[in-house]
This record gives sequence, C-alpha cells and structure tokens, in this order.
Amino acid sequence: MTDYMEIALEEARLAASRGEVPVGAVLVDSTSGDIIARSGNCTEELNDPTAHAEILVIREAGEIRHNPRLENCDLYVTLEPCPMCATAISFARIRRLHFGAYDPKSGGVDHGPKIFDQPTCHHKPEVIGGHRETDAADLLKSFFVARR
Amino acid sequence: MTDYMEIALEEARLAASRGEVPVGAVLVDSTSGDIIARSGNCTEELNDPTAHAEILVIREAGEIRHNPRLENCDLYVTLEPCPMCATAISFARIRRLHFGAYDPKSGGVDHGPKIFDQPTCHHKPEVIGGHRETDAADLLKSFFVARR
Repeated sequence: MTDYMEIALEEARLAASRGEVPVGAVLVDSTSGDIIARSGNCTEELNDPTAHAEILVIREAGEIRHNPRLENCDLYVTLEPCPMCATAISFARIRRLHFGAYDPKSGGVDHGPKIFDQPTCHHKPEVIGGHRETDAADLLKSFFVARR
Repeated sequence: MTDYMEIALEEARLAASRGEVPVGAVLVDSTSGDIIARSGNCTEELNDPTAHAEILVIREAGEIRHNPRLENCDLYVTLEPCPMCATAISFARIRRLHFGAYDPKSGGVDHGPKIFDQPTCHHKPEVIGGHRETDAADLLKSFFVARR
C-alpha cells in the first residue's frame, strides 16, 4: 500500500530545500488510490500568501478533474491545516483529511477557530490527526532552528 | 475620489453574468490610491474552489509586487469574507478591509469563526462592514432567485 504521508513528507523536504516552510500535501483519489496532485509550500517562490501546499493540490486537482468539488478525494498533509486551508478543504468537499503535526500556534482544525466545528462550515471531512507526527514536527523544527 | 466599492460591485455584476456567485473585490494601494487588482468570483470557470474574488486579487497583487506581503493595501469586497478569505487577508497583511453585505450563513469575519478575533490570527486588519450593503445584498438575492 502506498505510504501517502511519506510522499507528503518528501514534498515538505523539497519545500525546505527551496527555502519554504516545510509542509507538503498529497491529494489521492480514494476509489483508485491514484495520486492526483502533490506539492509543497510555495508562498515565497510564487509571492502568493495563499500558496500553501493544501491550496496548491486542491487547485491542481480541480483543474485536472474539471470540477471544483473533489468528491471521493483524501488529503494527506504534514501539518495541521490553517483556517484558510481548512475552509478550502471543506469547499472542495474532501472526504478524509490526514495530517501530521499539530499546530497550536496557527492551526485551524484542532486549534483556534476549529473550522470544521463551526455552524458556518457546510461540509466536514473525516479527520485523522497525528499521522507521522514526529517526522513532520522534526522537519519544521530543524528548518526554523537553521534559520535563526 | 474613486468609489472603489462601486468598482467591486461592477466586478460582482460581471461575475453574475458569467454564472458565478456575484461577489467582487478590488485591491488598492493605500498610499497612491491606485487599483492593483480587481476581480469577481471565478470558482466555476476555473474549477477552483479557492477562486473567490478576494483570493484572486491577493494572488495577482503578490505577483505584481513580487511580494506575498501586501502592506499598505486596502481591500474592498462586496460580501463579508469567508474564513478562507479572511485568513488569506491576514496572511497578506492587508491594512484595511471594507466589505458590503454581511453573511451570517458563511461569513468568517463577523460570523462563524470570526477569524480576526482568534488568538491564532497574527495580523488583524482594520474592518469596515456594511459599506454599500444593500446594493451588494440585492445583487446576491437577484442571482439566487433567478437560479431557483
């Protein structure tokens, strides 16, 4: 069975090597198991504050599928999504969200606004947090230590 | 003085004519008063659930300015931003947000997660709501009535 979170971690490592905050995401067709899109953060490279890994894979998958609603898709991301990405995940109607490290400072799923628990959230994916948590967190820690 | 909200309303009307939910946005350099980017919603046309008017103008402005941080910029949008857009507005460090109609069902500024009031929100713009509220709300109402 493909280890999708390992592929997301690879994307996070590639992001770090480009000077981006090391977060990676993989979007999977849950029916076939095929990877539809994979990406790391690109906010600095693209000068785009919305270019988080999750947003980039959702945008790419919508284009590939000619549909902004990505039903039967699962998302693997190395860090708890922020409120922007959590809301985009809801809009895209992602079936299941797997994330790695928890993010008490800027997360939007288990922390802060807890987007999926809001009455204004009209689609809530199944959520599995803490998947390969230590690997994802170590990658972020090393990145920020190296930049200090 | 340029009526930026009128221009945002024009973008909303253009969006409706393309079959998109009629929301428009204009991003302004607050120092010069120049419009940097203007757009309506494009989620259906682009098959991109993140292609809200606010996200599109922020992305375009980051590209134009070669900087993901849009300091000294003001955003005019016809509808209260959703949590995705509110978070993007915070990431982009927008100085001031003017919005038209309030959105109790899906808004993220005065409703639901109230993004800018969260401890996980690290930049909070000045917010002016209800600017040309009736015009913006009427546009949305007509659009949804016509589609029923």
